[in-house]
Amino acid sequence: MKQVLDIPSELSGIQQWVLDGLVAVTDEIERALHSDVPAVASLCKQVEQFRGKMLRPTLVLVSGAACGASTDEPPTTELLKLAAVVEMVHMATLVHDDVLDEAEIRRRSQTINDKAGNEAAVLLGDYLISASFSLCASLEDPEPSRLIGKVSMELCEGELLQIQNRDNLSIDEATYFEILEGKTAALVGACTRLGSRAGGASQTIQNSMDVFGRSIGSAFQVQDDLLDLLGTEDVVGKTLGRDLQKGKLTLPLIHHLGNLSPESRARSLTLLENASETRAEATGAKAEAHTIELVQSLKESDSLEYARTTAKSLIERAKSALLPLDDTPARSVLQLLADAVLTRDR
Amino acid sequence: MKQVLDIPSELSGIQQWVLDGLVAVTDEIERALHSDVPAVASLCKQVEQFRGKMLRPTLVLVSGAACGASTDEPPTTELLKLAAVVEMVHMATLVHDDVLDEAEIRRRSQTINDKAGNEAAVLLGDYLISASFSLCASLEDPEPSRLIGKVSMELCEGELLQIQNRDNLSIDEATYFEILEGKTAALVGACTRLGSRAGGASQTIQNSMDVFGRSIGSAFQVQDDLLDLLGTEDVVGKTLGRDLQKGKLTLPLIHHLGNLSPESRARSLTLLENASETRAEATGAKAEAHTIELVQSLKESDSLEYARTTAKSLIERAKSALLPLDDTPARSVLQLLADAVLTRDR
Repeated sequence: MKQVLDIPSELSGIQQWVLDGLVAVTDEIERALHSDVPAVASLCKQVEQFRGKMLRPTLVLVSGAACGASTDEPPTTELLKLAAVVEMVHMATLVHDDVLDEAEIRRRSQTINDKAGNEAAVLLGDYLISASFSLCASLEDPEPSRLIGKVSMELCEGELLQIQNRDNLSIDEATYFEILEGKTAALVGACTRLGSRAGGASQTIQNSMDVFGRSIGSAFQVQDDLLDLLGTEDVVGKTLGRDLQKGKLTLPLIHHLGNLSPESRARSLTLLENASETRAEATGAKAEAHTIELVQSLKESDSLEYARTTAKSLIERAKSALLPLDDTPARSVLQLLADAVLTRDR
Repeated sequence: MKQVLDIPSELSGIQQWVLDGLVAVTDEIERALHSDVPAVASLCKQVEQFRGKMLRPTLVLVSGAACGASTDEPPTTELLKLAAVVEMVHMATLVHDDVLDEAEIRRRSQTINDKAGNEAAVLLGDYLISASFSLCASLEDPEPSRLIGKVSMELCEGELLQIQNRDNLSIDEATYFEILEGKTAALVGACTRLGSRAGGASQTIQNSMDVFGRSIGSAFQVQDDLLDLLGTEDVVGKTLGRDLQKGKLTLPLIHHLGNLSPESRARSLTLLENASETRAEATGAKAEAHTIELVQSLKESDSLEYARTTAKSLIERAKSALLPLDDTPARSVLQLLADAVLTRDR
């Protein structure tokens, strides 16, 4: 959490509770991924380098605390296992995403597909998702397994819808948000819902917490779109302008193409088509020049500002969903986490 | 079942019960795979063409009947759902296997990867496995979810161990069986265990039924090895000699290499290495010539016979595991199914 947030001193208690909890979550993940097959164990070790900020387990733990879980003692085994489950689902999607994207770098480490081949990466992703379901099924409450199964289906639907719309230059905002909902928001909603459920929240509060999670998840993805256009490889830690080169239209581009004079639109379409065509040859310099020109014209059509405003209003919706909760340090942390989505640069 | 077995008339009652049950299982699968995203729905429709003999759902239903499920009425919803779950796990592995194998044909239909691309195939496999877990988690009994999660992990471990041993010409029988146990036997064991459990079997009988399933699963794979070497593309319905061309050592080859004079071994190794080297260029005619010469030398070292004997003793073990069961028509069908593994040519 310290990587994500500057925590004021009055919240240092809950911060420490979460940090200690994340160490225990890491242990849960290691146990769940244990394999007697050396090749599998070694791949699992590699994939742990991608773990990054542990945003999803953090959300499970803090949501639990915000809905009744005691922070005077370590998180319950149920909370820890749920936190491990959502992170493993996320890890599985990262591994398969890198296969689909033919990415070479993830969080400054070599991707599994680049290091061990596509076959091993496909199977490792399958292993991660299976281990996640297996751990989830070990809980007494059957609801998490039902939700995680459903959310995993939504994840795939979102990704498949995205593939179907690749190079579709007339994709509309509704489809964009349908993709985003499946690809990102559903799992984040599951984190906050499951955490709150394990904390003892009523069905109504669980629903609110789902809205909170989905909203910050959506805002996170819109911010990701902005970073993909504006970030440098060093800061974002993944290959720059991938979305553009893979023909994925992001929110700023969708707004841009929908709000241009005919001749400006023609120029932007040419730039986008070039970006798509050059991706096969991976001519970095040429693609980068196109990216720079596009970003310039996105600024002129206020499309970057539009995406920023959209992210901001999603965060407002998220924070409203927290209003029915008691005013606790954990709720304050959730509010800070929501705000941090808008200010992150990586 | 009629595609697998010649059923004597005294078993026609249970045969009809299974056939009607399989229709209901198909409905369960369709419901479980339902998607509002048209691209996903269309891929699911394509993958249903691979469904083939429905051996795994058949084993769930018959195991249920052999352990107490009434055949006077249609199979319970629990049995139908379990049968759908195992078939969906199997379908997921087929879709990902075809990506890994770069296969173009599966059961006379174009594979998903060949038709819709590797990305769609990876995601469709993920969708299938998620839908399978989701359906399994909808049951009241939590045990099936726990078992299916664990077995799915074993499946991946088996596949990864196989990849790690590709082109390993000194692989031993123990590793071969470790791969086979994960890749094939574990899921078949889950079919017979879960069917018997839903039928009301004691823990002891469930364990016996797991042995039955694993044993016929293993025998099935050994028979598959034989068919891969001996079948023609028309009969087996998948690309011929794939195992050989992918550098996967099968039981006959492992036995062959372990039981040769030094100079014969050198010649066989050369043939195998050529088969591996030519796979990248996919020169069908050359690879086929190597296959034919290898099959001839496998006959001379009695290695085909050795594999046949191994399969036969696995089937004996399977049938012994059925002895504690009451003598019912369903048990007779399980015995016939076990025998049929050895006589199948496709």
